[in-house]
Amino acid sequence: MVEYIGIEGIQRIVGRVGPARFMEGLAAEIEADYRRWGEFDKSARHAIYSPGGVIELMPTSDGQMYSFKYVNGHPKNTARGLLTVTAFGVLADVETGYPLLLSELTVSTALRTAAMSTLAARWMARPDSRVMALIGNGAQSEFQTIAFHHMLGIREFRLYDVDGHATEKLARNLHALGERDLQVTLCRSATDAVAGADIVTTLTADKCNATILTPGMIAPGMHLNAVGGDCPGKTELHPDILRRSDARVIVEYEPQSRTEGEIQQLPADFAVTEFAQVLSGAAPGRASAAEVTIFDSVGFALEDYSALRYLYKLQRQQNPSRKIDLIPHLDNPKDLFGLLRASTPRSPASPSARALRPIAAESAPT
Amino acid sequence: MVEYIGIEGIQRIVGRVGPARFMEGLAAEIEADYRRWGEFDKSARHAIYSPGGVIELMPTSDGQMYSFKYVNGHPKNTARGLLTVTAFGVLADVETGYPLLLSELTVSTALRTAAMSTLAARWMARPDSRVMALIGNGAQSEFQTIAFHHMLGIREFRLYDVDGHATEKLARNLHALGERDLQVTLCRSATDAVAGADIVTTLTADKCNATILTPGMIAPGMHLNAVGGDCPGKTELHPDILRRSDARVIVEYEPQSRTEGEIQQLPADFAVTEFAQVLSGAAPGRASAAEVTIFDSVGFALEDYSALRYLYKLQRQQNPSRKIDLIPHLDNPKDLFGLLRASTPRSPASPSARALRPIAAESAPT
Repeated sequence: MVEYIGIEGIQRIVGRVGPARFMEGLAAEIEADYRRWGEFDKSARHAIYSPGGVIELMPTSDGQMYSFKYVNGHPKNTARGLLTVTAFGVLADVETGYPLLLSELTVSTALRTAAMSTLAARWMARPDSRVMALIGNGAQSEFQTIAFHHMLGIREFRLYDVDGHATEKLARNLHALGERDLQVTLCRSATDAVAGADIVTTLTADKCNATILTPGMIAPGMHLNAVGGDCPGKTELHPDILRRSDARVIVEYEPQSRTEGEIQQLPADFAVTEFAQVLSGAAPGRASAAEVTIFDSVGFALEDYSALRYLYKLQRQQNPSRKIDLIPHLDNPKDLFGLLRASTPRSPASPSARALRPIAAESAPT
Repeated sequence: MVEYIGIEGIQRIVGRVGPARFMEGLAAEIEADYRRWGEFDKSARHAIYSPGGVIELMPTSDGQMYSFKYVNGHPKNTARGLLTVTAFGVLADVETGYPLLLSELTVSTALRTAAMSTLAARWMARPDSRVMALIGNGAQSEFQTIAFHHMLGIREFRLYDVDGHATEKLARNLHALGERDLQVTLCRSATDAVAGADIVTTLTADKCNATILTPGMIAPGMHLNAVGGDCPGKTELHPDILRRSDARVIVEYEPQSRTEGEIQQLPADFAVTEFAQVLSGAAPGRASAAEVTIFDSVGFALEDYSALRYLYKLQRQQNPSRKIDLIPHLDNPKDLFGLLRASTPRSPASPSARALRPIAAESAPT
């Protein structure tokens, strides 16, 4: 039997501690895994593109556990009442190849993305950051807000979305949290939202080379958390922002980010730093208060590995946890057919002597 | 909600018609899909190797549906009471990216592999074939026997396995089928089993360059159904068999077979034919009664696509079918956080005026 976390399951698991503490715990797991970057089998995700979107598989392994995530990205889905991104994933035991956990990752991806954004900002944003602009107020925006508020001490969130209903929804959800020291400002434009922000998070979904942020909007010392540009042809930053002489660009896994991140707009030799190098001390996340730091985030398989292992731990603390019969258990592993024996219609005739020789001893062929 | 087929589910679905008719229907689906080979997005599977085995992902799509299979191969598992191969997979809608079906594929892979082997043999084996040797009598052997018996008219099966218990298990299961015209012969060695056979099916699991079949065992006119050699370093045929001047080697998807199939033992320019070319009439499956035909089978993602679509059709004919809550349903797809709202611990204080501005109209930032 395989442990199973569906939507009801993730509601139960996150509900025990609340999203803020869940994301804080998850960020610690992600950080611990990025600190042993060299142990992971890394590859750019496998993507199949169609006119309406992309479906991706993101596998990785550290030699002990294996994980993969299935995730789609279909920007036009919201118009028909569907999610832009849905996801699920599996954690498996490398020694036997058996899956251990199947989990929803639609909600969990939003939680892990916000945890990762905040983790990166801890190393990259100015420590005195208190104001964040949030451009794109869709499905992931509450998660980013809560994570940055609780884990980084951001007090003011300046919201903007081309869809005013999305902004209202975000403000309503944040209001309902009842946090005293969380201030929300609704803005007229992306430019208004960004003005005066210490951190700018872009979370837009359009599948095109959009220009959500232009060079004139960026001030020295800002940290840009660019989340929405995450596949070929889908970017949010004007490339001149990346080219600023005072800009520092950090990516998760360079080979994947070259084709999926904001840096797809630049030559392949444009200098970037992998986040693991920041954690190891090989490179700074920020070298001065005046630098413009850019976390060119696309989401890497290691983060889902961390999330699945974290969920597996939390799931097993529940008694009883929910399981599904995805993998058979057999008394004799060579008798897979035994599972179907009961379901095989027997022919009415009994086997003739000719049909089957006695099994007693191995006989020579005739 | 996503349709779910677990072990109980596959027992129910296959039980309605029996494995023979199930495999016959599946072979028709696989053939129909191979006939539109050009419509599929094809790639060699993604594999992560470890000392004990391999874990693979096998995605494909025809632009309408997307599928992938997770499958492991761990030869030492049987020694600890576990299956060598376990698998599951997902069928998804390309237009929305939403998964439609999650299904067990451990049992189904055995069914689809046997269906594919038989389909290939229909085009490659001599039409008067009546005797098949079966080297390797483990988890997949019953499926191969039933498929070749019902779909190709094979009457005599000559069994050999280094593990006599496996052979006894296979013979017992075949006996229990009660088929009058199915003759089973237990053999002392692979050489004995192969002598006089029209078709030789190799189904061994060892992860090494084994030599299950040597050149001296092969007679003109034989069809070799080489199933067990399916990953780098895992082969079953002596390479001189492939090099025979009268041999014709058919593979599923050449780029994958070059690294995983029997032909991994030969130079990259060794001539092979893809099975789709046989179906399209571009190449013969067999050109003469005396040729030695070799189906160098490793299993391709298209076959799992066919199996998942077939299972999805059969599952939806059941009322009610079983579903799982793997993907959320939201009234407002931008309000993913709404799923967790009930689970968010509210802070005791009510929001202060400072905490949230009124949402009525978009306000300018201060």
